[in-house]
Amino acid sequence: MNAITLRLDSQAKEPLYEQIYQYIKSEITIGRYPYNTKLPSKRQLSAYLQCSQNTVQAAYDQLTAEGYIISKPKSGFYVCRLDGIISIKKESFVPQKQTDSKLKCKYDFSHQGVDLYSFPFPTWRRINKNVISEYDTDLLKTGDPQGDINLRYSIADYLHHSRGVNCSPDQIIISSGTEFLFLLLIQIFERDKIYAVENPGYEKLNLIFKSNGAEFRSIALDEYGMIPEELFKSNADIACVTPSHQFPTGVIMPINRRLQFLNWANEKAGRYIIEDDYDSEFKYSGRPIPCMQGIDGGEKVIYIGAFSKSLTPAVRISYMVLPEPLINIYKEKLSFYICPVPVMDQKVLCQFINEGHFERHLNRMRNIYKGKREALVTAIRSLLPFAQIFGANAGLHLILKVNNGMSEEELITSARKNGIRVYGISQYYFDNAPANRQPLLLLGFAALKLSEITEAVGLLKEAWG
Amino acid sequence: MNAITLRLDSQAKEPLYEQIYQYIKSEITIGRYPYNTKLPSKRQLSAYLQCSQNTVQAAYDQLTAEGYIISKPKSGFYVCRLDGIISIKKESFVPQKQTDSKLKCKYDFSHQGVDLYSFPFPTWRRINKNVISEYDTDLLKTGDPQGDINLRYSIADYLHHSRGVNCSPDQIIISSGTEFLFLLLIQIFERDKIYAVENPGYEKLNLIFKSNGAEFRSIALDEYGMIPEELFKSNADIACVTPSHQFPTGVIMPINRRLQFLNWANEKAGRYIIEDDYDSEFKYSGRPIPCMQGIDGGEKVIYIGAFSKSLTPAVRISYMVLPEPLINIYKEKLSFYICPVPVMDQKVLCQFINEGHFERHLNRMRNIYKGKREALVTAIRSLLPFAQIFGANAGLHLILKVNNGMSEEELITSARKNGIRVYGISQYYFDNAPANRQPLLLLGFAALKLSEITEAVGLLKEAWG
Repeated sequence: MNAITLRLDSQAKEPLYEQIYQYIKSEITIGRYPYNTKLPSKRQLSAYLQCSQNTVQAAYDQLTAEGYIISKPKSGFYVCRLDGIISIKKESFVPQKQTDSKLKCKYDFSHQGVDLYSFPFPTWRRINKNVISEYDTDLLKTGDPQGDINLRYSIADYLHHSRGVNCSPDQIIISSGTEFLFLLLIQIFERDKIYAVENPGYEKLNLIFKSNGAEFRSIALDEYGMIPEELFKSNADIACVTPSHQFPTGVIMPINRRLQFLNWANEKAGRYIIEDDYDSEFKYSGRPIPCMQGIDGGEKVIYIGAFSKSLTPAVRISYMVLPEPLINIYKEKLSFYICPVPVMDQKVLCQFINEGHFERHLNRMRNIYKGKREALVTAIRSLLPFAQIFGANAGLHLILKVNNGMSEEELITSARKNGIRVYGISQYYFDNAPANRQPLLLLGFAALKLSEITEAVGLLKEAWG
Repeated sequence: MNAITLRLDSQAKEPLYEQIYQYIKSEITIGRYPYNTKLPSKRQLSAYLQCSQNTVQAAYDQLTAEGYIISKPKSGFYVCRLDGIISIKKESFVPQKQTDSKLKCKYDFSHQGVDLYSFPFPTWRRINKNVISEYDTDLLKTGDPQGDINLRYSIADYLHHSRGVNCSPDQIIISSGTEFLFLLLIQIFERDKIYAVENPGYEKLNLIFKSNGAEFRSIALDEYGMIPEELFKSNADIACVTPSHQFPTGVIMPINRRLQFLNWANEKAGRYIIEDDYDSEFKYSGRPIPCMQGIDGGEKVIYIGAFSKSLTPAVRISYMVLPEPLINIYKEKLSFYICPVPVMDQKVLCQFINEGHFERHLNRMRNIYKGKREALVTAIRSLLPFAQIFGANAGLHLILKVNNGMSEEELITSARKNGIRVYGISQYYFDNAPANRQPLLLLGFAALKLSEITEAVGLLKEAWG
């Protein structure tokens, strides 16, 4: 390989490992280190750069995590192909604190979680440091019940430009998690409304409604999402839908069906649509469809979003946009609830958005997830020819229909025996799943490494083939 | 492609690569570089801009990572399709500081808030910096629904040593704010229990119960707290009390009355006491009385606490200790609720406690508040001889009975005219306050400066004297 021209700058904002990582990534990307180039050993490189081996290790781990290089046992690190899919052994990079049963499996296609190697920690750390200031007495006060006004401005801007949502900061309520937003909604509607939920759907919705004495009906889906006729037949007042990427089926609701629902809501006072846009940030193909809130002009749609998928679920920040009459009810009856998100966290997020880091992070993540999604689709097409893919045009999971004669339970169990965790759709049905239903599996890909995906699908092939 | 009109500014705050990145991104976004436009090679562009090729490389890398351009091997960099690229423009708005009417008064005896000059910002900042680590994948995951297990251990230790609470970390649920803990309790008890609340009492309790369809009875107080006979007469199952420092009257419940309540609870299955220890950290005189949870051994008492008074209300962290049977119901029915406190904040607080800073902070604050309380009591005794003080042995507020013939309303209004905000007790009655009641005012002293207190009381003397 070529000479290393990097000079580490210990004064730079970026940590040393990051400088090494950036340098090598750049050399690989521009082709100066072609496929199969052997990188210097950690000892050689640390001696040459006069840094610790741990620093080099961290850089190599990061490069490995993103699939730029591969570690060959007893030989060293080699440059990967950048276009193709690679298959590597599990790294010991992830600190494993939890000892739950998930860790016993080799690869987990859970739909929860995000990419574990792309969170902008240095930026987040820097902004936190800025925000924790002895001169900011806001940090010693309760804060606005609807959430920090500046953060609400930033969210309104973001929603307007990226999702076509039409709202003022005054209509936004910031909370911690979608669940708490639903708790507020149930109180706004005073338990005298009937909710319609997608079936199959987000498993917590029925638990929340049940647990809080709110009536609900589960409505079947077809290939375009919730079936309007079924909704119309029910006596529901409020339809809870996930039109951008139905959970769990991955269906993107077409524009004319969205209009059907909006017309239904407009037919009668007191009818509303709750549009949960939980992973709308990631769309990979097809024309973008405006969110229902934007089509409607904001009169009949309660729009819900969160930073769980776009940043990390550990930052518990979600929000909803309420139509004018509902925000008035909230202010009159419910503004005694203190905003559950710590003031400091709201300020950090606000600065993160305003300095442009959120936009960059989203675009970067979209590329990363697009790569993972393509790797998964490619591997499935070549290794599991008896399986069909659905719902892969958006979001962080897809649906697999496996036509090999096995039941959903058998598919899950045999995958599990081969070290892979996959999830059946059955658990997302509120009543029993239809008896003659084809087995469907939910495969999340956000938290898997790009380099693991082909091997994981290979293990599924062994299990099901 | 069009001419590059960029001029790099080496004096600017933004690094050179950032200027190139921003320029090209903007040209692509506004459509001046359409899809498939070939960008100049790094060599060309660096020669033209008179910067290093690495600088151009860094800009191209960033654009590639965010999906604006793509590198085609042996050909160069090309503009991508912009489908799905997110661009957040800032609307023109001036960040707002709140200018509520509170700022117009000179001194505010609000019971909310804490001392504004004693929060350990440097320590908090340092711990935040430590906690935000790229090697901690917990920061990218949802976390334990009951709250971080290490924080629960720390809270259990703290409660055991400082409050005599008897519990294991497994019995603790961490949440954001007392309100959300009550929302969980209402769901645990499934809306078929009747709650007894202190009257006057914590103003939000009745709002929460009402808003969530839970039945409650308000129970009168005497000079020792909630009147047992009134509770016994009601058909309530669950008594909500603040024995350490009744809110708002400041009464400390004596031990024999605590035992009366515990006996009542033990007489019948399904009876419980909710002990809200909201400002128990600060006790200034008299013998310490064990908390009810500690007397009881933990079978009939739900213990609630928070860090709002002891640290800052802006850190939204509260917790409750549930008796064994209730924690089992929670685990079975309600553990689907994700803990609303961000994982990072939980880790920061945990480290803050474990390194001994919380204990030091509490002891320091107790001294500070003791000084403020003494200044207030001294000033009242010398300047307002016609007033009596109650409930000043603990907590961050006291009660003033003003015997000058003015009504509560008149006292508040005349103080307000003299630049002082004080609060009447009437607003804390759930029904109408008793007609023949003496006017009582609530004076919080935590957020006032020690040096301001005598002057503030002097202004009250002018208003009422």
